[in-house]
Amino acid sequence: MTIVVGFVPTKEGRAALTRAVEEAKSRGSRLVVINSHRGGIDDETMRAAEDELRQATAEVEASGAQVEVRQLVRGNEPAEDLIAVASETDADLIVIGLRRRTPVGKLILGSNAQRILLDAPCAVLAVKG
Amino acid sequence: MTIVVGFVPTKEGRAALTRAVEEAKSRGSRLVVINSHRGGIDDETMRAAEDELRQATAEVEASGAQVEVRQLVRGNEPAEDLIAVASETDADLIVIGLRRRTPVGKLILGSNAQRILLDAPCAVLAVKG
Repeated sequence: MTIVVGFVPTKEGRAALTRAVEEAKSRGSRLVVINSHRGGIDDETMRAAEDELRQATAEVEASGAQVEVRQLVRGNEPAEDLIAVASETDADLIVIGLRRRTPVGKLILGSNAQRILLDAPCAVLAVKG
Repeated sequence: MTIVVGFVPTKEGRAALTRAVEEAKSRGSRLVVINSHRGGIDDETMRAAEDELRQATAEVEASGAQVEVRQLVRGNEPAEDLIAVASETDADLIVIGLRRRTPVGKLILGSNAQRILLDAPCAVLAVKG
């Protein structure tokens, strides 16, 4: 079994990674983490994000499950990268993070989330940030 | 752990129920199936749907996990029922079914699916019909 998750250093990205790690550990699945570099963040934020990613992968490895980090610099939309990797790896699950809606928030999902939900070749687990 | 799924006798509804049963069995979770009667289907379809539901619940029970079917006739939107029951039962997961998009299909998720994804008190697993 393979689980695919995109790594984004935001609250909802962290929620997705944490849940993906838990799912990989409990199912003994291989975890593929996609780290897309799109620029626009400073070196310090980048280093902190990489530390976080290392910690998460170490946790999965310690549980005996396999983990692989793919650095993608293709400049695609995040949804495209996730769907492409899920297809390539014949994934069983994609984990995504969704922002919590504020009480006055509009009832619209982001276009990346919609795209992943509609076009994913497998089930999608959506968790709240 | 509690998993909540809405029962709908359609291709995507069946996909959601099948996956929810699998998840409940593999996690040893309690499964709560919501059967909302909204009318508009003939007796034969209704009977076939009830047979399907009985078969699914028997499968979960046979695995040793708990299953509960809630008949709801409140006339709410399906999203409201699912979210209310997920809150009441302190659910860990809601399973929903999504229609497959045709190659020329529009990039829009149904409003019930969006509502559940945005307002669910827990993670949502979206599976394709």
